[in-house]
Amino acid sequence: MEVNFASDNNSGVCPEVMAALAEEAERFDAAYGLDQASARLEAKMADVFERPVGVFPVATGTAANSLALAVTNPPWGGVVCHADAHIQVDECAAPTVIGSGLTLHPVAGAHGKLTPDAVSRHLDTRRDSGVHTVPITGLSLTNSTEAGTRYTTAELGALSELAHRRGMRVHLDGARFANAVAGAGSSPAELTWGAGVDIMSFGATKGGALAAEAIVVFADDLLDSGTESIERLRKRVGHLLSKQRFASAQFNAWLGDGVWLGRADHANDLARRLGEGLADAGVELAHPVETNMVFALLDPATNAAARAAGATYYTESTPDERVEARLVTSWSSRLADVEALIDAVAGA
Amino acid sequence: MEVNFASDNNSGVCPEVMAALAEEAERFDAAYGLDQASARLEAKMADVFERPVGVFPVATGTAANSLALAVTNPPWGGVVCHADAHIQVDECAAPTVIGSGLTLHPVAGAHGKLTPDAVSRHLDTRRDSGVHTVPITGLSLTNSTEAGTRYTTAELGALSELAHRRGMRVHLDGARFANAVAGAGSSPAELTWGAGVDIMSFGATKGGALAAEAIVVFADDLLDSGTESIERLRKRVGHLLSKQRFASAQFNAWLGDGVWLGRADHANDLARRLGEGLADAGVELAHPVETNMVFALLDPATNAAARAAGATYYTESTPDERVEARLVTSWSSRLADVEALIDAVAGA
Amino acid sequence: MEVNFASDNNSGVCPEVMAALAEEAERFDAAYGLDQASARLEAKMADVFERPVGVFPVATGTAANSLALAVTNPPWGGVVCHADAHIQVDECAAPTVIGSGLTLHPVAGAHGKLTPDAVSRHLDTRRDSGVHTVPITGLSLTNSTEAGTRYTTAELGALSELAHRRGMRVHLDGARFANAVAGAGSSPAELTWGAGVDIMSFGATKGGALAAEAIVVFADDLLDSGTESIERLRKRVGHLLSKQRFASAQFNAWLGDGVWLGRADHANDLARRLGEGLADAGVELAHPVETNMVFALLDPATNAAARAAGATYYTESTPDERVEARLVTSWSSRLADVEALIDAVAGA
Amino acid sequence: MEVNFASDNNSGVCPEVMAALAEEAERFDAAYGLDQASARLEAKMADVFERPVGVFPVATGTAANSLALAVTNPPWGGVVCHADAHIQVDECAAPTVIGSGLTLHPVAGAHGKLTPDAVSRHLDTRRDSGVHTVPITGLSLTNSTEAGTRYTTAELGALSELAHRRGMRVHLDGARFANAVAGAGSSPAELTWGAGVDIMSFGATKGGALAAEAIVVFADDLLDSGTESIERLRKRVGHLLSKQRFASAQFNAWLGDGVWLGRADHANDLARRLGEGLADAGVELAHPVETNMVFALLDPATNAAARAAGATYYTESTPDERVEARLVTSWSSRLADVEALIDAVAGA
Repeated sequence: MEVNFASDNNSGVCPEVMAALAEEAERFDAAYGLDQASARLEAKMADVFERPVGVFPVATGTAANSLALAVTNPPWGGVVCHADAHIQVDECAAPTVIGSGLTLHPVAGAHGKLTPDAVSRHLDTRRDSGVHTVPITGLSLTNSTEAGTRYTTAELGALSELAHRRGMRVHLDGARFANAVAGAGSSPAELTWGAGVDIMSFGATKGGALAAEAIVVFADDLLDSGTESIERLRKRVGHLLSKQRFASAQFNAWLGDGVWLGRADHANDLARRLGEGLADAGVELAHPVETNMVFALLDPATNAAARAAGATYYTESTPDERVEARLVTSWSSRLADVEALIDAVAGA
Repeated sequence: MEVNFASDNNSGVCPEVMAALAEEAERFDAAYGLDQASARLEAKMADVFERPVGVFPVATGTAANSLALAVTNPPWGGVVCHADAHIQVDECAAPTVIGSGLTLHPVAGAHGKLTPDAVSRHLDTRRDSGVHTVPITGLSLTNSTEAGTRYTTAELGALSELAHRRGMRVHLDGARFANAVAGAGSSPAELTWGAGVDIMSFGATKGGALAAEAIVVFADDLLDSGTESIERLRKRVGHLLSKQRFASAQFNAWLGDGVWLGRADHANDLARRLGEGLADAGVELAHPVETNMVFALLDPATNAAARAAGATYYTESTPDERVEARLVTSWSSRLADVEALIDAVAGA
Repeated sequence: MEVNFASDNNSGVCPEVMAALAEEAERFDAAYGLDQASARLEAKMADVFERPVGVFPVATGTAANSLALAVTNPPWGGVVCHADAHIQVDECAAPTVIGSGLTLHPVAGAHGKLTPDAVSRHLDTRRDSGVHTVPITGLSLTNSTEAGTRYTTAELGALSELAHRRGMRVHLDGARFANAVAGAGSSPAELTWGAGVDIMSFGATKGGALAAEAIVVFADDLLDSGTESIERLRKRVGHLLSKQRFASAQFNAWLGDGVWLGRADHANDLARRLGEGLADAGVELAHPVETNMVFALLDPATNAAARAAGATYYTESTPDERVEARLVTSWSSRLADVEALIDAVAGA
Repeated sequence: MEVNFASDNNSGVCPEVMAALAEEAERFDAAYGLDQASARLEAKMADVFERPVGVFPVATGTAANSLALAVTNPPWGGVVCHADAHIQVDECAAPTVIGSGLTLHPVAGAHGKLTPDAVSRHLDTRRDSGVHTVPITGLSLTNSTEAGTRYTTAELGALSELAHRRGMRVHLDGARFANAVAGAGSSPAELTWGAGVDIMSFGATKGGALAAEAIVVFADDLLDSGTESIERLRKRVGHLLSKQRFASAQFNAWLGDGVWLGRADHANDLARRLGEGLADAGVELAHPVETNMVFALLDPATNAAARAAGATYYTESTPDERVEARLVTSWSSRLADVEALIDAVAGA
């Protein structure tokens, strides 16, 4: 038996999305975003975020992140991000390529989160020699984070306030935004533009879609002036989908009737149970479990037992003999799998 | 009633592809191409082309074209293509952006086709002043062409021979390769590497998929040396799909059991009927109808009648008062629609 | 004896410039343009052009052209230029590289000159399909032209008016602007911003400097908003000179006391004499001689005689058996050399 | 009185270089490097380095560094450099722009120097997830360093050996190579290719030239295969000088008869005296004085006294109330100035 905790991008496609695709498949409609599903998506997103937004679907999160950063920073700018951010460690410098030389400036922080203090310190201590130095023009935050934690609206607001005060745009990598919102007690609006986010990469793929990501633009001046640059650059890096309506249809189904939050709730709930179960079995967790990821420090025997039980997951080495196992739940994870893994670990 | 002849990318998704997606949706599998469907795709493509190939799925034809050109030409190179080629007129310079400054060099030719004479003349008469001039390093052919015609294997072979003799790589834009193969009397192998094609953009989207395009590598030296550059650049422009298995699954279903050629046969057959019907009604055709596109020169009254009958299609102006209507059939076009359009035109 | 008519960039450095370099060599001063010579250059240029300007020295004309185009067009834009323009045929696509994918759109025209009609026709007949097509955002003119002719202020004004009306910026490649101004009966101001030029590449190298080119910004909005992009991009392509004061010193000496126009007058005068002498000897000229270049159609015997007399020059083939010889005079050409060449040709 | 210790790029041009320029100014010669001075330069460089080399003059050190890195690393590669390296902190990401997305990976080290241990640790601890992660493909060393220290041949050899073993190319930033060689007891050959350096940026500008930098290629395979990429990219970023012979003439005069080392000896000697004098006056030095830079930790009163004496120099703040003053000597610095500064400090 395989019990997949490798990543939520190993999950399948949820029935609501498949039903929407099947329905859309029967119809003709215009290409390149001039279709009815894409028009509905813009209205749906405005509804979700409680304000007018610009919506630009693309096929991958890397494309969404890179395009969003490219249109909110000059090519000679720099973007501060967490040292473990996906844009920094997992996109092979795509933001630099698509951003025509835009650079990333990693800053460390506990549990995958940046703090105003850490960002300020970075800004204040780096060399600044005018035209010779890259100016910092952007801040990219990830919510939920790569450590499975989430930012509160107060934390986001303080970081955005700092960024704006220092002339920086705020980008949110929302590949797992659904997991951040589910059970947060804050609305999508409060967790984005309400907290100062200017532009966002909003991902549905990990949450139950097949391939549906979108750049969502909040800032009024960007809505006024920046959309041609998004549309042009999206086209020029091959991310204007001819049958865009199928990406839009995925989003429409996933956002409709709260599917996205329900699916994320399920994943978050299983992660919580998994974390509690592992902790009860004496396993130390590297980060608090706040969304759909559990980071468990496993000694060799425990790790072997979990593997033997059929669990797949990624590990990183640690300073001691343990490994840090990243265990990711998704909309398609099953409680039985979680329990099986807990049992395997508890028995080790 | 809407009768859509605007483009084959306005069509839906064929049932075979939808069935494969539905099946794949139920499963977990690895991300980023390390999945079973992608492994099967490589075998399937080798089967279709009767030789080992490299296969790199992406979401759009623009991405496939641009990546294929970028990895077969140096950034300072130039690519000769038809003046009406998609890469030249419809991709907002994406091959230049993704190719780090690669330039395109359009050459005219009747019915959407290049000839060895025209290419030679271009090469022989352009200025060459060493490092100051862009060297021509590639030839990009489109089959079936933007004019709905197709190249014979002999024509392809002569162009490739010329290109190779002059140090140029040969790329094939196969966004409508299915239509070129269907009924051609030549195999996919004969129409590609057998005729000297080094690398290809193979599109399934227009032929019945949702979003499935692939770079297919034939040339032995590229298979040996060039795949890291494809993989890296694909990642860096955001075209490595996390759930790539769904792109592979589309291709597998579409290529399996000859679905692709059967669907293309249908489209080609309807276009042939449409062309014959219009000609019988006295309409002049701009190009021979060899695949799934009909270019009809419509006088204002006829054009108005066709529009009134609900037909959607693109037009371009001509030197006289007629418009050139591009009428595209697809796997999902219906005979009744073709007949309705013919009737409307005949009645005008 | 070598009689060099190959190019004005084969000439040496005029004494006034050398004297200024020798004087500057004795001093310390700040690097990267914060020096006194660079401050004086800005004032000197304002004097020459009779208005405030932005001045950005660089080492080559290719850099000046590429940077000027890059900061006045979006990366997705296109620039119309003459089919023989230096940016189109002699810079190995540098404007595209430095312009992050900016494309050039050549338009033909007699004697190296564009006309409003030809530009309009190009704009009106090219395909425009929205985001899929590169929009034309710039017009680049060369004065004096690659054919050695010059534009009148009326011609420049008409082209600029057309460009601005259609939303295009106007760039002037002034690698040989001195030759265009000398004897023109129009001032530098009238031949640039007075005729609608927004930004210019102003070259002193061909006219007697060692390596001194500058981007000169006229348009008010660019002066307000565009200079950071020039400064940043100049730095990022390695064109901010550490000892910029030596480039500025060259310009100051060359522009001072009308040296530039005097030196250009000399070159133009020799070209006029050369053209007249060749015509008198029965040689057909391809273009009117208006500045410092003569394009002579030489039959094989005449060509051989000129070569035998020690003359160096570039040729291009023609449809008949003659070659088109490009004969360039410069500030350092000698009347005796011109006469020797005329004699050799007359004797052939 | 101004006593300039701000930078060696604030110095003038040494008489030997000016004499060569004056001589070259009188002559015609071919453009774009096809001249006699450039041919002599290639021979002269081969003589200096005791082996055949490729030589490519450019106008700035940033251009030389960026081009050298761009042609020895794939665009998707990464280059390890010291955290204070010029390419990292002073070139506004030019290596990334010219390298089409090449990234820099800073590693800290005492006194401006990298060690094999620090580089190994960086390589071993960074995340590597295949195509998602930038691979480290290059190592860039600076000699003399930004801290005014120098590497021994043994240190360079150990770093190069590590780099080559791990598949990385070795680049040397030699903006102050003359200062590193002068008095080193090792030859230019021993300090470059003899110690494993594949390619070098060799600067004469700081050492007494006006604007003369060169990419020098050592590695046999690069000499065989890589020069077209250098020539093309140099052209495409506007760094092929039309009157290249004047850059070559500067180098020829500067390298001839050991001028470069004599001038560097002078600068190094003055720095040594300055360092000793400051130390005798009780000033703490941040780094050992091994070439032409002194880093002095000055308390506010001393700093004020030095300023009052007319000394210009850059400072950086430190954790305590002192500033770190960077005092740079050059070929044109005078002993009297050094003594004046020492006196001013000693009197404070």
